[in-house]
Amino acid sequence: MALVNGCEQQTLAITDRATQYGDGCFTTILVEQQCVQLWSLHLARLELSLQRLAIAAPNWQQIYSQIAALALKYPDKGGIKILISRGSGGRGYNPLGCHDTQVVITDFEWPLHYQQWQQQGITLGVCQQRMGNSPMLAGMKHLNRLEQVLLKQEVETAGWVDAIVLDGDDRVIETTVANLFWRHGNTVYTPALQRTGVAGVMRQQVLNMLDELNYDYQVGDFGVDAVLAADEVFITNSLMALVPVNQIQTTQYCQRTMFKTLWKRLHSC
Amino acid sequence: MALVNGCEQQTLAITDRATQYGDGCFTTILVEQQCVQLWSLHLARLELSLQRLAIAAPNWQQIYSQIAALALKYPDKGGIKILISRGSGGRGYNPLGCHDTQVVITDFEWPLHYQQWQQQGITLGVCQQRMGNSPMLAGMKHLNRLEQVLLKQEVETAGWVDAIVLDGDDRVIETTVANLFWRHGNTVYTPALQRTGVAGVMRQQVLNMLDELNYDYQVGDFGVDAVLAADEVFITNSLMALVPVNQIQTTQYCQRTMFKTLWKRLHSC
Repeated sequence: MALVNGCEQQTLAITDRATQYGDGCFTTILVEQQCVQLWSLHLARLELSLQRLAIAAPNWQQIYSQIAALALKYPDKGGIKILISRGSGGRGYNPLGCHDTQVVITDFEWPLHYQQWQQQGITLGVCQQRMGNSPMLAGMKHLNRLEQVLLKQEVETAGWVDAIVLDGDDRVIETTVANLFWRHGNTVYTPALQRTGVAGVMRQQVLNMLDELNYDYQVGDFGVDAVLAADEVFITNSLMALVPVNQIQTTQYCQRTMFKTLWKRLHSC
Repeated sequence: MALVNGCEQQTLAITDRATQYGDGCFTTILVEQQCVQLWSLHLARLELSLQRLAIAAPNWQQIYSQIAALALKYPDKGGIKILISRGSGGRGYNPLGCHDTQVVITDFEWPLHYQQWQQQGITLGVCQQRMGNSPMLAGMKHLNRLEQVLLKQEVETAGWVDAIVLDGDDRVIETTVANLFWRHGNTVYTPALQRTGVAGVMRQQVLNMLDELNYDYQVGDFGVDAVLAADEVFITNSLMALVPVNQIQTTQYCQRTMFKTLWKRLHSC
């Protein structure tokens, strides 16, 4: 099913600025037992991104109605993607006068391998290619995702499940599809994302839970050595929630204390 | 007129990876007196970009036939845009198995204000916002152009015609729509684009002409001070060709020696 501005539709105008320039943003939402998960966090991030991009906000109530109706298709688990484009108009890159916000909603089956990842954990590689820095765009889940496409090609070629990505200054940022957390002793760490990276909704939820649990954490700049020296590593995104990392390159992790605490908390919310 | 894979068509599938991720590249070509200008340079850049992105190349002969036919509409000047997308397929960011290259060709009237720019020159601002660095994508005219959209908003808000853009390390890169050249004494300078920026076709043509003229030039890293200290400044892109810069902020330039030499050479090719 694909809805464009609430109507079933399979195409967009070739003039749409999402197609021409990646001029928009998106979010991917977990549906569990017919319910839309973490909507308030998805909404907050979409609103913030549209503000930063100066794209006119759509009618959020209508959007919520549409995704809530789609969620009913999934008694177990499913996914919904909301893509918001600035639409057609403007002159070249200049979006002046373009007030044509397009909302594309699609739903899809939950990737079943995520269950195995959650239960058994995964091994991560470390990408050779370095993510760029773009403070203008950092943190947003915008539609300019060519770096992720190229990084995923590297992951595929290397035969990894997923991999850690560093920036040009050797800072750990995230994986190709998830945010990264690690615990060393009693402190949890995750990379700052002011220069690049996607500030994931599940990342925010984890930070919120760490606050609620009164757990010590640091958001900052770290090299891969800090991750390799950790007691425990896990990755997060909206669809997979939390996935423990068993191994990065040749370094193994067998502790799951923090993962289990957060998993329990997440499923008791 | 819009052609998708050679057929008149106004839409693309919402699943197209250009729309979802900006997964593709484009070029904008000048038509002059019914003739496609600098095709070999446009072709070379498209081919290189598709190689870097691992997107299957389309049939270039068919594409050339299509644009040559469109060019006949423009006895004076016109523009043709070729957008190449990876198409629909793959799984998430992962493009594995996607061999659905889509070629979207559109034509448009030549922006008439460029003639005034060419004849009278323009004033440039200097953007506050800094372009990111992305070695993975640098040089390509890919479809991830959100930074240009935001930079254009700044230009619009400031009331400028165009503006110089720096990267986060204070290096001059380009303007929001053009490459930048300046002459100091007998040497011409232009920014290196290994970290970010678009390696324009007209930039390449200017470098080629400087070679042919046996003129001294340097491609490197420069701050805005180097540009402000220049004897002469001009900007380039395929549609506007060469445009002299009269002023940057409060610094004025009245020499046009290099501009005139290159203009003459360009129109005698």
